[in-house]
Formats: sequence, structure tokens, C-alpha cells
Amino acid sequence: MLGQTYDRENCSAARALEIVGERWSLLIVRDALFREASRFTEFQRNLGLATNVLANRLDSFVEAGIMQRHPYSAHENHYEYVLTDKGRELASVVVALTAWGDRWAAPEGPPILYRHADCGGPVDPGLTCTKCGKRVAPETVDAQPDPGTRTVLPRP
Amino acid sequence: MLGQTYDRENCSAARALEIVGERWSLLIVRDALFREASRFTEFQRNLGLATNVLANRLDSFVEAGIMQRHPYSAHENHYEYVLTDKGRELASVVVALTAWGDRWAAPEGPPILYRHADCGGPVDPGLTCTKCGKRVAPETVDAQPDPGTRTVLPRP
Repeated sequence: MLGQTYDRENCSAARALEIVGERWSLLIVRDALFREASRFTEFQRNLGLATNVLANRLDSFVEAGIMQRHPYSAHENHYEYVLTDKGRELASVVVALTAWGDRWAAPEGPPILYRHADCGGPVDPGLTCTKCGKRVAPETVDAQPDPGTRTVLPRP
Repeated sequence: MLGQTYDRENCSAARALEIVGERWSLLIVRDALFREASRFTEFQRNLGLATNVLANRLDSFVEAGIMQRHPYSAHENHYEYVLTDKGRELASVVVALTAWGDRWAAPEGPPILYRHADCGGPVDPGLTCTKCGKRVAPETVDAQPDPGTRTVLPRP
């Protein structure tokens, strides 16, 4: 975890990045969410990252409550890493990143499509307003300190 | 930019993370989106990060087309960094991270609320199906290679 890096930030995006902002973290979560990866060797084969980095990430996910570690065989060191609800809800972040990458960094078209399993429709991570129900464009989002918390939002 | 780190990944989330996955990157974008920050000194004061890191991030954002650099005074080295459309559309990623952090990493409640400027309603980054219109739970998202691209999705 990034730990103290964002300590002076009173912001949930910063808190989230402390948990999943390290290199490879969100791709490990993506593989657990959408590629049925759960074993160390599966993540390692899919991603090709260094084993010490992968071990560090999985340990920190267990510590942060994003994954649970379960033994899957009689071998002492054989574990499955299974997403918790907290981990599964990162789907919205992974799909939002993917949609942005599809639009701005995929000149040959989207390599992966996210579909609604129930009806086969495309899944959309776009922002919507829960009051008027409209699609919310980025320039019509206002950030406000929650009056229920004693937050001072720094302004330039 | 993370550059070659995720080179073997044919995935738009990985491509997105190559552009905005470095430490501080998404918080700089957040400040540009929602805190009206545009000058080097504003980002630096808000975030308190090292000036060489900030300079590196802003340069890479300009290079990646997320921001444009405009002079704002007669001084040669005084620039504003202004988000392009490509940069502004990262709002969905920042709001999704924030919503996840609000839910799982904000024991004292959400410090910042994102509101729809037009009606004041809460902005929701949840996944929806563009076919059936329903809210999509993480466990009902299927990832499929796009038949239009020659992608082989690695499976464990």
C-alpha cells in the first residue's frame, strides 16, 4: 500500500489510491474480477510481473480486506486469493478506466468488451445523476465538502 | 508515464494506467477537474508533492494530450495546465475511485460530495447496462474479447 504518501489528503479518491494505487494493483484486481484468476501462479502467468511484487500486492490486498486467502490443497503454501465484496466493488473503477482507455488509448478498437451477463448489453461506467436521472458530463460535476464532516477543501 | 511496464497487456485499463497510473497522477487530475487548479504552484500547494515529481507528471500529461500548457503572464515560465477533453473524461475514473473510497475507506463519512451542477443531485458512477437500463452488479459483468479485434484474452 502507498501508506503515508497521501496522508494530508482528506479525500476518498486518495484513500482508494492508497489501497489500489500501486503499480499492477488494479490489473491484479481486474484479473480476479474478469479472468477468473485466483491462484498466485495464475496471476503471475497472466501478468508476467515479478513474483516478489505480486506477493507483496496480494499480501496487502488481504491486509486491506480486498481479498481473502484460502488454502486450496493439502500443500501448505497453496492458496487461492478470492475477492471480498470490498474488492469486487472495484469493478466500477476498472470498467471506468477501461472505457476511458477504449476511447482515448485504443487506436485499433476496444480489445475487451464488458457485457451485462443477464442480457448481453454493453456495460457503461458513465456518470449519472441520481436525482434527475440524466447523464452527467464531466464539466457539470461540482465537488463540495460534505456538511456532515468537518472537511476543509483546499482551494487554490 | 509507466511506459513499457504493461506492454504485454492488450487491455484498455492497462493502457489507461500507463498514462495516469503513476503516483499522484489521478490526484493532479482531480485537482484540475474539481478544485480549479491550473498553475504549477496551485497543484504544488494543494498536494504538497515534490516539485520534480509534479513537473514530471505535468510534462507527461501534456505529452499524452491530457493537458495543454498555456502561458498566463509575460513571464516566460509561467504556464497554466488546462485539461483537454481527454483529460476531463477522467472524471468518471476519479468519481468511481471516490465512491469506492467513500464506501470502504471513509469511516467518518464522505469528505467530498460530487453533485450534478444542473440540479444538485448526487453523481453516481455505478455501472449500468445500456441495453436493459438496469444497474449492473460487479458479479454480472462478463469480459469478452471484442470480435472486431484480434485479441486473445489470456485465461488461467
